[in-house]
Amino acid sequence: MVTDSERSDPTRESSVLLRGLAILGCFDSPMPVITASAIVKQTGLPPATVHRILTILIEGGAVERVSRGSYRLGLKMWRLGSSVPQARVLRDVALPFLEDLYETTHEVVHLAVRDGLETLYIEKISGRGAVSVTSRVGRRLPLHATGPGKVLLAYGPRDVFDQLVARGLPALTPQTITDPDAIRRSIAEIRRSGYALSREESSVGTASVAAPIFGSLREIIASVSVVVPASTFNPWTLAPVVRAVALGISRGMGAPSR
Amino acid sequence: MVTDSERSDPTRESSVLLRGLAILGCFDSPMPVITASAIVKQTGLPPATVHRILTILIEGGAVERVSRGSYRLGLKMWRLGSSVPQARVLRDVALPFLEDLYETTHEVVHLAVRDGLETLYIEKISGRGAVSVTSRVGRRLPLHATGPGKVLLAYGPRDVFDQLVARGLPALTPQTITDPDAIRRSIAEIRRSGYALSREESSVGTASVAAPIFGSLREIIASVSVVVPASTFNPWTLAPVVRAVALGISRGMGAPSR
Repeated sequence: MVTDSERSDPTRESSVLLRGLAILGCFDSPMPVITASAIVKQTGLPPATVHRILTILIEGGAVERVSRGSYRLGLKMWRLGSSVPQARVLRDVALPFLEDLYETTHEVVHLAVRDGLETLYIEKISGRGAVSVTSRVGRRLPLHATGPGKVLLAYGPRDVFDQLVARGLPALTPQTITDPDAIRRSIAEIRRSGYALSREESSVGTASVAAPIFGSLREIIASVSVVVPASTFNPWTLAPVVRAVALGISRGMGAPSR
Repeated sequence: MVTDSERSDPTRESSVLLRGLAILGCFDSPMPVITASAIVKQTGLPPATVHRILTILIEGGAVERVSRGSYRLGLKMWRLGSSVPQARVLRDVALPFLEDLYETTHEVVHLAVRDGLETLYIEKISGRGAVSVTSRVGRRLPLHATGPGKVLLAYGPRDVFDQLVARGLPALTPQTITDPDAIRRSIAEIRRSGYALSREESSVGTASVAAPIFGSLREIIASVSVVVPASTFNPWTLAPVVRAVALGISRGMGAPSR
């Protein structure tokens, strides 16, 4: 038997695993199926390495070959993703409340968390009559440019705000707030009112109301929002129901009542 | 520069990557946080190897350390999971229809696909008033023991049925069909009627109606179902709406009308 110490070569092990994760990371893309040459381009790894690692990932069930040279992730990765507790526990607690919110508004409902400096959408509920938005579960947008993102910024760690400003505030639409002082004022207003308004800041033609979801230490863990056509936007009717739902989910996540 | 051919050692590479995937696979569990010792137990790998690989997986963002000796998957894995096209495309197409089904029934709605010999639940919609079921997104149950599973069996490849029978048909409740001939008859009836009924076959106290979702080649790709309390089960009112929704999703997935 070969013992573990005979086998181990930490540097080499690390490089192989990180390459494998880098190749898997290429599938975090709007394209469902990608080619080996796209992976070569994105990772900068030699084609022979990419092919060799893809073969192993297929053997391990992480990747599937769709046709010659085209690959997609396997259901194994979906199962792993659905096990991620930061998303799963929150989703399980939030879903009935999101259903209620959808039923009372019949508008697009989003649940989002912070992923670094981005808003990450982890749930979306919409009927066929709701406003058309380009959001999809798994999509990421900069924190400053979305309603839920501004909420996550307003209640999040100060250094996240500083990092975001240092990275720059790109405009997604002509209405996106790109001035650091304006974002600072927007955040102060959100902390005062308890909710965020966004009018065509992330996409032209839509507006949203977002409210914070807190955890057991009163830390911010997520944001719930409703997206409506900008033309019929009435925040004074939407804000109370979005806030009520956010409070309900917060209670479900163990946030103390005050 | 070290060239790729100087670096490569296919056997070694394969073993490291497959160990990494095996460790990630341990997180496909109902427990959100697991310990290194549980991973050692489940994989049979030496503790030093498990710790070394965990450290690399943390560096790559796949795993997070929760506390000393406890780990969970990172949001990166959630993003990858949400990119898996087999689940994502189907989910995006199906969700508005599932919402409609929930609104018209106010019962638990499931979307499931076949994962080997199991029913894998990839979407669940339920309000706070619906029947309490233990299902969760990501859960797997044997094909023969659930309504959606019987649908996936009825329209799936013949060898899946043979493999399932060869593996054995365990009972989840006293009503689970465990006799191969009875399952064969049940499948014939499903193909005749276009839907599956299940009365307390997967859990005591609940019943369901499930219907097939087809793709562009008329191949079965998923099953949609509604779960209700067994005491008030009325398949004759539920079956038409479940079938109509399954046909709508099938059309959205490109299935030919006939």
